[in-house]
Amino acid sequence: MTTTPEMSAALRALAMDAVQRARSGHPGAPMGMAEMATALWGRHLKIDPADPRWPDRDRFVLSNGHASMLLYALLHLSGHDLSIEDLKAFRQLGSRTPGHPEVGVTPGVETTTGPLGQGLANAVGLALAEKRLAAEFNRDGHAVVDHRTWVFAGDGCLMEGLSQEAISLAGVWRLGHLALLYDDNGISIDGPVAGWFGDDTAARFRACGWSVIGPLDGHDVEALDAALRQVRATGRDEAPTLVICRTRIGQGSPNRAGTAKAHGEPLGDEEIALTRAAIGWPHPPFEVPPAVRAAWDRREAGAAAHRDWRLRFEAYRSAYPEAAAEFERRVMRDERPAGFDASTTAAPPGAAAVPAPAVATRKASQQVLARLGPALPELIGGSADLTGSNLTDFPGCGALLAGRIDGRHVHYGVREFGMAAVMNGLALHGGFIPYGGTFLTFSDYSRNAIRMAALMRLRVVHVLTHDSIGLGEDGPTHQPVEHAASLRLIPGLEVWRPCDEAETAAAWSAALQGPPRPSALLLSRQNLPAQPRDAQQQAAIARGGYVLSDRPAARAVLLATGSEVDLAMRAQQRLDALGCPVRVVSLPSMTVFDRQERAWRDAVLGRDLPRIGIEAGVRAAWGGYGCAAVLGVDTFGESGPAAALFEHFGLTVEALVARVQEVLAGDAS
Amino acid sequence: MTTTPEMSAALRALAMDAVQRARSGHPGAPMGMAEMATALWGRHLKIDPADPRWPDRDRFVLSNGHASMLLYALLHLSGHDLSIEDLKAFRQLGSRTPGHPEVGVTPGVETTTGPLGQGLANAVGLALAEKRLAAEFNRDGHAVVDHRTWVFAGDGCLMEGLSQEAISLAGVWRLGHLALLYDDNGISIDGPVAGWFGDDTAARFRACGWSVIGPLDGHDVEALDAALRQVRATGRDEAPTLVICRTRIGQGSPNRAGTAKAHGEPLGDEEIALTRAAIGWPHPPFEVPPAVRAAWDRREAGAAAHRDWRLRFEAYRSAYPEAAAEFERRVMRDERPAGFDASTTAAPPGAAAVPAPAVATRKASQQVLARLGPALPELIGGSADLTGSNLTDFPGCGALLAGRIDGRHVHYGVREFGMAAVMNGLALHGGFIPYGGTFLTFSDYSRNAIRMAALMRLRVVHVLTHDSIGLGEDGPTHQPVEHAASLRLIPGLEVWRPCDEAETAAAWSAALQGPPRPSALLLSRQNLPAQPRDAQQQAAIARGGYVLSDRPAARAVLLATGSEVDLAMRAQQRLDALGCPVRVVSLPSMTVFDRQERAWRDAVLGRDLPRIGIEAGVRAAWGGYGCAAVLGVDTFGESGPAAALFEHFGLTVEALVARVQEVLAGDAS
Repeated sequence: MTTTPEMSAALRALAMDAVQRARSGHPGAPMGMAEMATALWGRHLKIDPADPRWPDRDRFVLSNGHASMLLYALLHLSGHDLSIEDLKAFRQLGSRTPGHPEVGVTPGVETTTGPLGQGLANAVGLALAEKRLAAEFNRDGHAVVDHRTWVFAGDGCLMEGLSQEAISLAGVWRLGHLALLYDDNGISIDGPVAGWFGDDTAARFRACGWSVIGPLDGHDVEALDAALRQVRATGRDEAPTLVICRTRIGQGSPNRAGTAKAHGEPLGDEEIALTRAAIGWPHPPFEVPPAVRAAWDRREAGAAAHRDWRLRFEAYRSAYPEAAAEFERRVMRDERPAGFDASTTAAPPGAAAVPAPAVATRKASQQVLARLGPALPELIGGSADLTGSNLTDFPGCGALLAGRIDGRHVHYGVREFGMAAVMNGLALHGGFIPYGGTFLTFSDYSRNAIRMAALMRLRVVHVLTHDSIGLGEDGPTHQPVEHAASLRLIPGLEVWRPCDEAETAAAWSAALQGPPRPSALLLSRQNLPAQPRDAQQQAAIARGGYVLSDRPAARAVLLATGSEVDLAMRAQQRLDALGCPVRVVSLPSMTVFDRQERAWRDAVLGRDLPRIGIEAGVRAAWGGYGCAAVLGVDTFGESGPAAALFEHFGLTVEALVARVQEVLAGDAS
Repeated sequence: MTTTPEMSAALRALAMDAVQRARSGHPGAPMGMAEMATALWGRHLKIDPADPRWPDRDRFVLSNGHASMLLYALLHLSGHDLSIEDLKAFRQLGSRTPGHPEVGVTPGVETTTGPLGQGLANAVGLALAEKRLAAEFNRDGHAVVDHRTWVFAGDGCLMEGLSQEAISLAGVWRLGHLALLYDDNGISIDGPVAGWFGDDTAARFRACGWSVIGPLDGHDVEALDAALRQVRATGRDEAPTLVICRTRIGQGSPNRAGTAKAHGEPLGDEEIALTRAAIGWPHPPFEVPPAVRAAWDRREAGAAAHRDWRLRFEAYRSAYPEAAAEFERRVMRDERPAGFDASTTAAPPGAAAVPAPAVATRKASQQVLARLGPALPELIGGSADLTGSNLTDFPGCGALLAGRIDGRHVHYGVREFGMAAVMNGLALHGGFIPYGGTFLTFSDYSRNAIRMAALMRLRVVHVLTHDSIGLGEDGPTHQPVEHAASLRLIPGLEVWRPCDEAETAAAWSAALQGPPRPSALLLSRQNLPAQPRDAQQQAAIARGGYVLSDRPAARAVLLATGSEVDLAMRAQQRLDALGCPVRVVSLPSMTVFDRQERAWRDAVLGRDLPRIGIEAGVRAAWGGYGCAAVLGVDTFGESGPAAALFEHFGLTVEALVARVQEVLAGDAS
């Protein structure tokens, strides 16, 4: 006698009941993938629910993140710190079970998913991280890095072009520890996919260097189990594996299974009752019998696996104490090396002589990398096929390729979005600080992955060169006029547009220290002269904006960023000659400057002087309607009913009335 | 005796000489594709150089747009209005031969390319347009629509994930009149592609429903010619064709051919001399002997083909006068039907009764579409697999599928970027006004194609629903907080965020009239109440911003967009009760409002009243540093040397000095 059918039924019941209770959500995918989850989580996935940060755990990525209730049910049943009360709070404001899985919110969630295709690409980064760490840290007889990355994805993820970038990279890198379980249910929101998705998916993956198992009956746990055994026999340097699982969306629901109607709305009380009967689950909502709970509980097995690993790691530490210490620093504590600080990025003493030669900030960035590279082995660079233009490589970095996985510079090919999403995966894994280059204008391609890095608070660095019309002849398709302003709008993204080598080094330094967050460095193609600074000014760069050159009795303030700072400095000289002294403020990072305390901002900008801004990009970056006050949302949103969110974010009649009264009382801020 | 080798040599010489003269550009791809171009343009492409707008011409798309000199050489030699002097001005400011091909700048350029992958996706749209127009207009014995779409693309285009979306759609739609000639040279900017591009491209395309010819020797014109004959025997409803052409980048250059060094910089005088000798081209730069010119000249053949078509069209007109008139209106004149005006989109009389029921603006948009659909047959809709959420369909629209190509609603699948780029292709072809839906947050995925629509001034409409935290439970991955502000930054894109049904109708009306340009309609998931308006206010919506509700002796102005307008209206009432009258301004389109004359803007905003803005998105949309003046670039850039561009855009010491003086004289504007 087996509890396997009950295990799957428990997933179906929790998913449909939680969606019903929330009155919103997606029951169809969790119900369709219940057996896939039972096979993987019930029999193969290497996790320790008591320590979801165990470095050698398998990584599980739910790329079709709308199936979040499946993941929450799995985390709950396997014994993670996620209670049945948490499941009951599905999709409520402040709960640990938001509408789509969010890393950092729910223990055991490895990456935030929802925007389709990105989970799969993150998984490629996770698997690359495993492969590269194994190459770097494992020793004969000491496999301290030996885990797999498992992805669930549906038709939606595979229709997204990003999936092609991801599977092409996984294939060429031969990520044998990566496996994708494809929920091949033939249904997307608009209906049966045959009319808009005719790919032979098995052939497509084989064309990209993958092994393919199936199609299997995705509701046959034993068949799935056999496939997963086969996957687990795959070596790290073999081909990644696609397992095609033929499923029915909403499986178990008598009237909705196999239809788009099962996808994105509660089944309703009546259909839920019919489903309970059909799947043989007589228990009330959110009740799981002890025997089924026991069958799902992974705590004991997980603790044992973790204990084994700890013993292996202790043996490793005895044999290779330095490597073990480095592994702990990088992978387990995410700390920088002892003695590493901002000065590592700065030019060596003497190099700051003025006049220093003019240098493109992309070149200055490469000079910083040449100093950082040896000091920071977790730094892993790359470019979307513009290495010689982005200048993201540095002496001795070595190309990371399938046969040279220990290289430190990744040739991502012409895949900007894939690069950014793989970088997110590398950062999520632990052990790496990824950076990657493309032209600023093509940040459009990768934009949502940059946004996801900001939402997940990942330390990744985007090196975006050719940052304005200053790139010249390539013309308007390649000239980013709105991109600096546009990137600054992404909450939590640090945007730097340095004016010279010193500001470039400071930008790199900021990107590598402080709380984890993504940074975008917007760098010039053209040479820019070094600006003179004293020690105070040098230190002030880190504040994002500072007075670069002042004048007694200044009558105005010139504000500039990047390549236009020098223009402002020259204007100042001309104005001096005309008897009109002005201050020049350099604003290498508006996002950082805007966070400084008011006294600093006032002191830099001056309170009573007219200001003139200059930047080779849309003027909207500098201002708009001159409102005395604005109500809005400056952070990412939250999962919850709309009315609660409007309250939460202060977008209410009351708040607006109060704001008006403040403004009229002269109390605007 | 054949001039074929000389024809190819002429292309190589013009490309390398023009790049050398410009001191920048990409010689490698034009030289590598010279025989491909000779075979296609010399023997098969159906064009009339005297009339590059002939509706039944073949479309040629250079998806690897950096090979622009190949296209310019072809346009010149085939007899288009592009002189040798134009070629000499390659990449100079104001020339007709910019760094990347730009539609509208150079006669015969079908689409602006450079951002990789997009040309291919545009081509899918061009081929879909041909197939659909053929289904709509052709009659037995009257094939007035019968042309092909030809694409050149390289490794870069095929690495981009967008290419997967494009080829998957082309396959499922069975676009038999589409052919892609793949410049398979094994080299990208970072070097030999094997390390980062291991796809079996033939197998990948076959998996997506394409026919594959080759690999062929891409320098063997006769082999290419045979392949193209085979392509031209392919019926419109058969599979699209990939022709794999094995080439050497920079072919002809003794020392650079086959290397990444050939890609993106001039060969240099010495190597050019060696190349001249190697390819047997003794002529000075920009000189082409008469025999070679004669061999290239397509004017006579083109005129004959065009004449044949005209005769056929006259026969068609005799048999089907109404269809012919409609074809001329839509495809040849791009005019709306007689009697079509803004009122078509407005609700029927009586429907505007107040209080009207609250309605989500996405639903209001669907109601507009229900009225527009019958009135405007060129309207072709679609959704990236969110039809029931975006509400982009309308009664009787019919799904466009391979077997029902006359449908008016395209199921693009989960391919936002592909959708946007295919829409650009539909608009470029002529005969269609495409619109397409996704969630606003996923405009990130399609962003660069929206930008390209703006750069190309194409009339496309992006229906972007679920426009704020108002979407609720799906959470931060799905909630666009920065997207409204970010889209407004794209030069030339009209962004509308209507507050109710009347503003939604006005937004649609604006999108469909006036000069061609793209529009983004940001629409709510949630219901919004109808606001009361008199006739003047109703007319004023078209100005992008207007006083929705005024008060005598108002002490402040509330500015709001979309779902927050009602909030402002309610705040006004509350303030009335507190003895504090305020004005409410609705700003459905900041991009339109900002273009209104100053008197209007002042009258709406009030000159001396404090302003309070409200929008459920980043506050940066409303202002920044309060500068008295800003210098910047508000349009797309241009092709030219950097110094000329800084002059051109007014980013100079002189301009900045002048601006400071104006501000200090109190003359800020």
